[in-house]
Amino acid sequence: MSKFHKKDYADELGKLQVELDRMTRWLQSTGKRLMVVVEGRDTAGKGGTIHAISERMNPRQCRVVALAKPSEREQSQWYFQRYVEHLPAAGEIVLFDRSWYNRAGVEKVMGFCTPEQTETFLKQAPIFEKQLVDDGILLFKYWLSVDQEEQEQRFAERLADPLKRWKLTSIDLKAREQYADYGKARDEMFAATHSKFSPWTVVDFNSQKRGRLNLIRHLLDRLPDQKVPEAKFTLPRLKSTPLRERFASAVKPIKGEYS
Amino acid sequence: MSKFHKKDYADELGKLQVELDRMTRWLQSTGKRLMVVVEGRDTAGKGGTIHAISERMNPRQCRVVALAKPSEREQSQWYFQRYVEHLPAAGEIVLFDRSWYNRAGVEKVMGFCTPEQTETFLKQAPIFEKQLVDDGILLFKYWLSVDQEEQEQRFAERLADPLKRWKLTSIDLKAREQYADYGKARDEMFAATHSKFSPWTVVDFNSQKRGRLNLIRHLLDRLPDQKVPEAKFTLPRLKSTPLRERFASAVKPIKGEYS
Amino acid sequence: MSKFHKKDYADELGKLQVELDRMTRWLQSTGKRLMVVVEGRDTAGKGGTIHAISERMNPRQCRVVALAKPSEREQSQWYFQRYVEHLPAAGEIVLFDRSWYNRAGVEKVMGFCTPEQTETFLKQAPIFEKQLVDDGILLFKYWLSVDQEEQEQRFAERLADPLKRWKLTSIDLKAREQYADYGKARDEMFAATHSKFSPWTVVDFNSQKRGRLNLIRHLLDRLPDQKVPEAKFTLPRLKSTPLRERFASAVKPIKGEYS
Amino acid sequence: MSKFHKKDYADELGKLQVELDRMTRWLQSTGKRLMVVVEGRDTAGKGGTIHAISERMNPRQCRVVALAKPSEREQSQWYFQRYVEHLPAAGEIVLFDRSWYNRAGVEKVMGFCTPEQTETFLKQAPIFEKQLVDDGILLFKYWLSVDQEEQEQRFAERLADPLKRWKLTSIDLKAREQYADYGKARDEMFAATHSKFSPWTVVDFNSQKRGRLNLIRHLLDRLPDQKVPEAKFTLPRLKSTPLRERFASAVKPIKGEYS
Repeated sequence: MSKFHKKDYADELGKLQVELDRMTRWLQSTGKRLMVVVEGRDTAGKGGTIHAISERMNPRQCRVVALAKPSEREQSQWYFQRYVEHLPAAGEIVLFDRSWYNRAGVEKVMGFCTPEQTETFLKQAPIFEKQLVDDGILLFKYWLSVDQEEQEQRFAERLADPLKRWKLTSIDLKAREQYADYGKARDEMFAATHSKFSPWTVVDFNSQKRGRLNLIRHLLDRLPDQKVPEAKFTLPRLKSTPLRERFASAVKPIKGEYS
Repeated sequence: MSKFHKKDYADELGKLQVELDRMTRWLQSTGKRLMVVVEGRDTAGKGGTIHAISERMNPRQCRVVALAKPSEREQSQWYFQRYVEHLPAAGEIVLFDRSWYNRAGVEKVMGFCTPEQTETFLKQAPIFEKQLVDDGILLFKYWLSVDQEEQEQRFAERLADPLKRWKLTSIDLKAREQYADYGKARDEMFAATHSKFSPWTVVDFNSQKRGRLNLIRHLLDRLPDQKVPEAKFTLPRLKSTPLRERFASAVKPIKGEYS
Repeated sequence: MSKFHKKDYADELGKLQVELDRMTRWLQSTGKRLMVVVEGRDTAGKGGTIHAISERMNPRQCRVVALAKPSEREQSQWYFQRYVEHLPAAGEIVLFDRSWYNRAGVEKVMGFCTPEQTETFLKQAPIFEKQLVDDGILLFKYWLSVDQEEQEQRFAERLADPLKRWKLTSIDLKAREQYADYGKARDEMFAATHSKFSPWTVVDFNSQKRGRLNLIRHLLDRLPDQKVPEAKFTLPRLKSTPLRERFASAVKPIKGEYS
Repeated sequence: MSKFHKKDYADELGKLQVELDRMTRWLQSTGKRLMVVVEGRDTAGKGGTIHAISERMNPRQCRVVALAKPSEREQSQWYFQRYVEHLPAAGEIVLFDRSWYNRAGVEKVMGFCTPEQTETFLKQAPIFEKQLVDDGILLFKYWLSVDQEEQEQRFAERLADPLKRWKLTSIDLKAREQYADYGKARDEMFAATHSKFSPWTVVDFNSQKRGRLNLIRHLLDRLPDQKVPEAKFTLPRLKSTPLRERFASAVKPIKGEYS
């Protein structure tokens, strides 16, 4: 697999973002609701994918949900409760950066929950999801795959790049040796939760650029490509000469060093 | 003012993001809380600035708050109530894309609230903010300025670029002719809410790239540049040969067209 | 059926409340969660029953949930979403004064939702409830029945008693003539949602006192009557003479007229 | 002080509840918002008072807020944040059973917070409250007083009465010996937070019945006693013979033992 050229990637992504934009207008005009669950291996590229989908969208329409660990009280509630409050309303898009599937992945492999809790979860997840789908929510679940060799390289990069260091936690390091266990956990998760009404889609993320494009393409192909007629705007000539900023008070623009 | 070269911008932003990253670790280790309010003219570049600050951050630490218009019930509540629920907890960063200041800007100019409501708001805002500051929240308020000529060009761009069309609403078009009114409203807002404990900082965004860099530089200069010692991680050699993804079930990676 | 004497009622209720109290300590010590849905005809006695259950309980442990009509945004969300946020955490009791079943009762009969919405609801409710039950929540659903003659008398009382007037709305008056339709709607609701894991219990409320006692007795009989050993408290003699309130400032007790 | 006769108490309370009812209709028709903070000594009668005010009210209009101790995340937030989400919307009544004043009372006396935290709180509370009052919220703060001898009797009663045992915690027992300290803390609290816009009202609760009546009388006297014309309802004769409950399915009323 040859390397994907940066410029080509940007061009392709740009085209897809135009389609995503059309899709958001379709959502808004129909009041449909979209939910995308992004799961996968450490380093696979969940955050970058969510970023590629959302960066050009209206933040009042599209939200990213990345929940921290539950409080003690939340831990005693119905497992899905704290996710439910983030479900989309009419016209909205919600992107889950990890999700309820923690319980079948990291929590299971690292022993943060009991085997019974995982088992219960695997029974409940399809039921929970069916409800949302039956209610008309458009639900997509993606799992991002990456080979261990590539994963190792990315761990090394994270160690080297100060901007990526926060992505590396002591849990990740322990998890490195459990690549096979994570794969096994995922297979069990698929067996229990890959359903007709809410299937999993696996995307190869050994190349992150290709992975992102393929995932977005796949998502768009499952949604109607309807052109919602845009309000016709025109910009009539201003009635007066363009003004310049003028500040009545002492609060004036700072002199930045970049000028 | 000469054009800022794309490559230079990326380099400079990269450096600032490294500093932002250090700052987030400082926040986390001290439990401090950071809140940045981003206000300014239509087209000035609020969304892009928030994006530049947050794009490399941990989504579990940094949230963007962009509230839609309030429900009828919310409209009858204490004006600040729906904002309060998004205030940062220990170690968190919250970036407000527009904020309670709507009431002194767009709502006032477009007549969406009564003059009395604006007046009340202008009295309450400093009191509200003082409380947060006294509670130890690090609060920064930026106002992004842009001349009307540049604004006009950007409106034209938004009309032409399908990915920017959603940014253009019928309200914006009406607002075009009210550039001076917006300026006047801002001056009144500054007069009432530019305080020692919570000052406004105006940043010239006639060049968006320079504006973003200047704003981030300014923010960083107001926070301590403390090196929080990072946990020393090493990546010991794996105990076994790197594995490749293997899928037990029929759910296998899709064949994307980008491959 | 002879009239139930007020004093006897108070005695019986008192005994049941002692058992309820034991039950709440059992809930707390085991971390179990209890949810009681109280539905039924207008005037049947939902509020009074909830009151009888909760009046002696710790308000930090027992909550009453009586939701107002949903906002426009809530109406576009998953139907159960706004109820989910009120589900009990460990040790808690939540009493629902009306519930999601509105959609199969008042909304259906009065035409506030479409027949399709009721149908969808009737399919979803058992699934929703099964999830909660499978998660370990103790869920009880009561339907309070009353004959129309008795209902008419109570409507008349509400009209006459100023303290009960708020219970009488224009919808209730329209509903008077639809006693049979409500009964039919209830039967369809039972047919769809009376399940092994979450059965309905109908209680005759033609006598409110008997109704309340029977309902509470029934509830208690379905929960273990375990004596949770109470912390042994003693009240050692005070080390000094009992003090009287003394107010240092000018803020002193008011002279009320009842003294 | 002679004992207040039970029957007389019920009569007087009934009259006050009629006035409270008128007041709630006034709130609803004007969209005003009412907030009552009930503080005071252990055993003084906070819960019973809240009960007397709310028992005849519409639970969709009147809420009791009795917050449990904050989660770790909440502890790191702005101190008032978790209270703000319970503030009343138009037409609503919110009764706080204890409140933000914990920090100046139990937390201070028992050492659950630092002296600095109490000091900060005492500075912030009046500012916080002024905002709510300026926003038009009708805010009342009551402090229920009781002499230690009476308090001792009530502790003894709580120990003896199974239905009151939950009210007795190990903290209360420690607090018994600190009657004077609680008084001192209260005086400091009054000195800092008894303001023109949000005064404290102290009510003598050595007799709970008199205390409740005096408190409610005081509250009513501070609100306009406006008669809101009620919708004129009539109950026209039913068009058909009153029906009896008939159940199509096997789900029929239980045979309760109270019948």
